[in-house]
Amino acid sequence: MEEGGRIIVVSNRGPVTFSRGESGEREHSRGAGGLVTALNAVVRRAENAVWIASAQSEEDLAVAKEPAPYEVEDLRIRLVEHDPKSYDLMYNVLANPLLWFVQHGLYDLPYSPALGEETRRAWEEGYVPVNRNFAEAVVETAAGEESPTVLLHDYQLYMAPLFVRERLGGDVFISLFVHIPWPEPDLWRVLPGYVREGVLESLLAADVVAFHTRRYARAFAETAAAVLGAEVGDGVVRYRGREVWVREYPISIDPEEFEELAGSEAVLEQEKYVKGLPGKLLLRVDRTDLSKNVVRGFAAYGRMLERHPEMKGEVTFLAQLQPSRTDVPEYAEYMEAVGRTAEEVNERHGTDSWRPVELFMEDNFPRSVAAYKNFDVLLVNAVRDGMNLVAKESAVINEKNGVLVLSENAGAHEELGEHALTVNPFDVDEQADAIHAALTMPEAERERRAKALRDTVKSNTIEDWVEAQIEDIESYRERHG
Amino acid sequence: MEEGGRIIVVSNRGPVTFSRGESGEREHSRGAGGLVTALNAVVRRAENAVWIASAQSEEDLAVAKEPAPYEVEDLRIRLVEHDPKSYDLMYNVLANPLLWFVQHGLYDLPYSPALGEETRRAWEEGYVPVNRNFAEAVVETAAGEESPTVLLHDYQLYMAPLFVRERLGGDVFISLFVHIPWPEPDLWRVLPGYVREGVLESLLAADVVAFHTRRYARAFAETAAAVLGAEVGDGVVRYRGREVWVREYPISIDPEEFEELAGSEAVLEQEKYVKGLPGKLLLRVDRTDLSKNVVRGFAAYGRMLERHPEMKGEVTFLAQLQPSRTDVPEYAEYMEAVGRTAEEVNERHGTDSWRPVELFMEDNFPRSVAAYKNFDVLLVNAVRDGMNLVAKESAVINEKNGVLVLSENAGAHEELGEHALTVNPFDVDEQADAIHAALTMPEAERERRAKALRDTVKSNTIEDWVEAQIEDIESYRERHG
Repeated sequence: MEEGGRIIVVSNRGPVTFSRGESGEREHSRGAGGLVTALNAVVRRAENAVWIASAQSEEDLAVAKEPAPYEVEDLRIRLVEHDPKSYDLMYNVLANPLLWFVQHGLYDLPYSPALGEETRRAWEEGYVPVNRNFAEAVVETAAGEESPTVLLHDYQLYMAPLFVRERLGGDVFISLFVHIPWPEPDLWRVLPGYVREGVLESLLAADVVAFHTRRYARAFAETAAAVLGAEVGDGVVRYRGREVWVREYPISIDPEEFEELAGSEAVLEQEKYVKGLPGKLLLRVDRTDLSKNVVRGFAAYGRMLERHPEMKGEVTFLAQLQPSRTDVPEYAEYMEAVGRTAEEVNERHGTDSWRPVELFMEDNFPRSVAAYKNFDVLLVNAVRDGMNLVAKESAVINEKNGVLVLSENAGAHEELGEHALTVNPFDVDEQADAIHAALTMPEAERERRAKALRDTVKSNTIEDWVEAQIEDIESYRERHG
Repeated sequence: MEEGGRIIVVSNRGPVTFSRGESGEREHSRGAGGLVTALNAVVRRAENAVWIASAQSEEDLAVAKEPAPYEVEDLRIRLVEHDPKSYDLMYNVLANPLLWFVQHGLYDLPYSPALGEETRRAWEEGYVPVNRNFAEAVVETAAGEESPTVLLHDYQLYMAPLFVRERLGGDVFISLFVHIPWPEPDLWRVLPGYVREGVLESLLAADVVAFHTRRYARAFAETAAAVLGAEVGDGVVRYRGREVWVREYPISIDPEEFEELAGSEAVLEQEKYVKGLPGKLLLRVDRTDLSKNVVRGFAAYGRMLERHPEMKGEVTFLAQLQPSRTDVPEYAEYMEAVGRTAEEVNERHGTDSWRPVELFMEDNFPRSVAAYKNFDVLLVNAVRDGMNLVAKESAVINEKNGVLVLSENAGAHEELGEHALTVNPFDVDEQADAIHAALTMPEAERERRAKALRDTVKSNTIEDWVEAQIEDIESYRERHG
């Protein structure tokens, strides 16, 4: 980043959360999760970068009121205070049900969504003002900087490119990275007019709009053409006299982080449990999201056991599910269906000495990592998934030449598909066949595939992900002055 | 059709159904419905055309066994006998839930479909053999003909182009007309691999693949590119060395037929009832299909009455719903939701002298036509709809300068949208606003819009629809010899 000015990273969730310790002093805990790890890599790469995020805790609000940026560890952080009602409308009405559901194709369209006043209010009084707050924080952070670089992240911030552009003009470089799938135009059109057009107008005020896969990038360009009449070229959308680059940068992981984790005490402790499970280990690790396709996964496993009774007792399906949005009725219902389906498989096929499914709906990352090391087959059968980092994380530390059964609708499929067993997430039988094929695959083939998976992940780490974006920022700047 | 040989029209349902009268003689009744009317126009236009369709009734089976074609009225008909189990699998497993749901976007994807053995069996033992039967009937009918022209219709016959091509080679002209929406690639990919690829391979064995709108034609070309890697140009798909034209011919109606109907005794009788309803007339006429969006329509009407209490007693919503697929659980559930929502509106807003919604779930075409003549506002708010002929039929005979509120996802929107009030079918508030705007629109604007709708429909009648296709067949033949 020799040429551009200060880097400003913006995401809804920040890298740390502040609190007060028992004796009253300020404490902080670092966040986990793929996006935070990735953005840490961006911030580490740049001199003097500032990370802007929403204040979440009470102590975060205190930090938000102090002079920014606030320095902690190696980070410069600016926290943004939102009106709690606005934030709630943005998060719990507009971003998480509406945009998430549309972009993952989760709605039961004959019945829902039923858009109305509540949607409009969530947009006008929630999403828009929260995005204006972020833009304001960017403007303040950029004050006095020449040619700042603003890297906005994800679907909570779709309106920020426009608001930043309005305030800072053409000198600022703006990108927005969409970390979830981008749907095709017909699905995008489910959104009310003011959202579907508003978001696109804003994204096309950025210089780069980035995605994890070619498929999402192409769908975005097609959506811009279909909804706004934008002109679409190869990796470029032209709109209102501006040229916007539409790019894919498949997000990745830090292999060393997982190699270290793999040897940690907490993981070694959990490995005792994992290694004690009878038979081969079939694994899934997911949030309990409707997009993850847990129900069909259990159904497929049950069907495999029906078709291949010789597999009974020879395999255990460990499902590590991290509860998510449990207060949302659709999610509560889904978790019930998940539990019910697992129980059906256990009742139907289990014996006194063997439980076919071991289901945990709880947060236990060390056990997940222990299972990463030991699975024979990993099932990633998402209905739709922006990337799916579990497939990548586990590939670098698995010690069993584990086979990946991978949904064609997971973003990871563009990179890993050729070394995995590809499944259509809606086809239960195909998944049953793939699970069986994976469990019975000859060792030589397992080894070849596992190595290819590992090499592929290691050839595009999170550092490469950052580098590719920075190169494009420099090219864009060179080309557009 | 000076140059091409005999025209062979193929559709699952034929123009007549045969039965035995009380005294034992063969009788027949003509079918109704937009597709049959349209294909009648095709057959009328051509010399000596033969219409192939599935035998449906017991007497149809007798006709199927007699030497073909069977001549009745001005038609030459060949009926095809299918194995009842095969037909059931084709119709009730593959075509009507699976293809219909995928192409209209009706699945609740986190839960359904759960594809499996039943799907494969329905494909292999139902859809494929039924399509082979149709192809066989085409081959027999074409025997001895030079350069026959085979016009296949709709989603029950997707495999027929391939089977006919295999038997008759390059001399035969084959088109397949898809009368329902074509989905974008991500949605098409819900289908199991053997269906999604099998159907596309077959359609690209035709010379022309036809749709009602540009949007469907474009989505088809994109699907062929995404799934088969076909090369896509302007209105052309190239695949395996062949050039396939992808065209849109918006289907229409016979205005004279509706003008005549409008004066018929049965309609005049029903008009008494329709004219007796209090206030302005808001109308919908649909099959009770999940794609028609009846529930949100009632919800929007209820919201309009809430926001504009001055409209109470000033309007009646007449909903004429023809029961459809009532034995399918999803449909039965939907009809319940429809009834419940109508009742809620009536309970909430009705008075002793005024019932806001008059809901009929029964077949009464004369009453629908009577309502066509008399509506002030017609609501067509489909989630997705191939064309929607109600919008066209009613435009030519409405006597009240009725306003059309039209879903942007109805095929008719490409032609009629600019003269209608466009709505997003998922946005209940937008529909409430549009209904109110339509009910209170100044007379001059109503008149201008109604005239434009009528003129648009009359400028592209069913005759024009046939003509456009025949011109393209001739051009295609000239170009490809």
